Amino acid sequence: MRIGLIGAGNLATQLASALAAKGHHFLQVYSRTEYSAGILAARLGCEAVVQPEQICSEADLYICALKDDVLSQVLPRVNFGKGLLVHTAGSLPMTVLSDYTPNHGIFYPLQTFSKQRPVDFSEVPIFIEAALSDSLDLLKNLASELSEKVVQVSYEQRKQLHLAAVFANNFVNYLYSIAEDLVHEKGLDFQYLLPLIEETSRKVKTIAPVKAQTGPAVRFDCRVMNKHLQLLGEYPEWQHLYEILSKGIYERTINKSSVI
Amino acid sequence: MRIGLIGAGNLATQLASALAAKGHHFLQVYSRTEYSAGILAARLGCEAVVQPEQICSEADLYICALKDDVLSQVLPRVNFGKGLLVHTAGSLPMTVLSDYTPNHGIFYPLQTFSKQRPVDFSEVPIFIEAALSDSLDLLKNLASELSEKVVQVSYEQRKQLHLAAVFANNFVNYLYSIAEDLVHEKGLDFQYLLPLIEETSRKVKTIAPVKAQTGPAVRFDCRVMNKHLQLLGEYPEWQHLYEILSKGIYERTINKSSVI
Repeated sequence: MRIGLIGAGNLATQLASALAAKGHHFLQVYSRTEYSAGILAARLGCEAVVQPEQICSEADLYICALKDDVLSQVLPRVNFGKGLLVHTAGSLPMTVLSDYTPNHGIFYPLQTFSKQRPVDFSEVPIFIEAALSDSLDLLKNLASELSEKVVQVSYEQRKQLHLAAVFANNFVNYLYSIAEDLVHEKGLDFQYLLPLIEETSRKVKTIAPVKAQTGPAVRFDCRVMNKHLQLLGEYPEWQHLYEILSKGIYERTINKSSVI
Repeated sequence: MRIGLIGAGNLATQLASALAAKGHHFLQVYSRTEYSAGILAARLGCEAVVQPEQICSEADLYICALKDDVLSQVLPRVNFGKGLLVHTAGSLPMTVLSDYTPNHGIFYPLQTFSKQRPVDFSEVPIFIEAALSDSLDLLKNLASELSEKVVQVSYEQRKQLHLAAVFANNFVNYLYSIAEDLVHEKGLDFQYLLPLIEETSRKVKTIAPVKAQTGPAVRFDCRVMNKHLQLLGEYPEWQHLYEILSKGIYERTINKSSVI
């Protein structure tokens, strides 16, 4: 398939690399930043463009992986010809694309991407949607080349997945960063926490998170919790966060018990 | 080594199994609950006891893995002979044991344990402390049989590790449980989040959490954040949590930038 790539961020980089590895042909990479477009275009062996008007209209598929807020600045200036235009965002309805071409859809891989870390797409769920049924088939086939989990979902479902991902990824990572600060403060290495972090994430593959819950909050161990709040004395925000999360865990445990 | 095990919870179960696999001999398992003591004693091929007074004084090592608050109810009733008494808690000073025997210490494996999931101790850091130098050597050797990471730490450091572990494990798991609820609410499978959860935990092995941070909060994407807060409308506690975590991420990013 001949693909035009609009955006050169983390997701664009990893998705394009995976599709290129499957033999798909990239015509162009567009980015506002010449540097970003150039790097990725070189990797894909195609042209880099920095003006939306330079995007050619011959592609079969346009993958738009721009930040949500710049979408409406770029897309009106592009002629998509007969190509299928998809965006990769979790939080935008498909209809934001309907002004630009009737042939549009969604291609949302649920994963966290960085430019440096190659991603094994075979395990990554890809959520699709399309305005035209032929295009839905096309997306289904394309996504299935990359992943074993291709699912057609509604916008309602997709935005909920995105919200859940913020909790399971962004917020989790923030808690890791607090943990890192805490151990560094006492001259200890963050590496000591890695086996725990790994096991915590593995556990929920076989045990539902609510059943896997351990720690002072779940058993309402006030002595330990108070000690921890004291230790956090210099960090009122983290103290507050500790209280809220502990309260949430405890209430969740109570509710679970009262249901059973 | 002849070991007396005091406690039959998750940690006791996994640690004892690992030590037994290395050829150590368990004399007894004590638990208040006959059932728990019986199950684990059967697994270890030793006697189960339910009264502290029944604990024999011939062991070389007593591993106490009781909950912090029952320690003082059980230990005064035991004759430890010449044995070394250690506890496995992150949040108690070694000195809580000094009333029961001068020969005491700490054996704190930093991991989350469940009865069903066997643990590979080779990667688990074990933090030790001992009142007597001979006993410190004994603990160092014993811990080294199980793990490649054996570290002597102070109580200050150990309780900070425990606090950090609450963030990196207990709180993280709670966020997983919220994510699970959110996807279930829209009829979606929690399985869809597992590759994301796994990658999030793997990423911090090579990229510091603060550098790995992504998502709407780090780029202060108000449009997406407001949408998420709306979606959380029925759950005011999670809305509040979302706000606090997003604020934390954003401020953390600002601080990082201003330092650079």
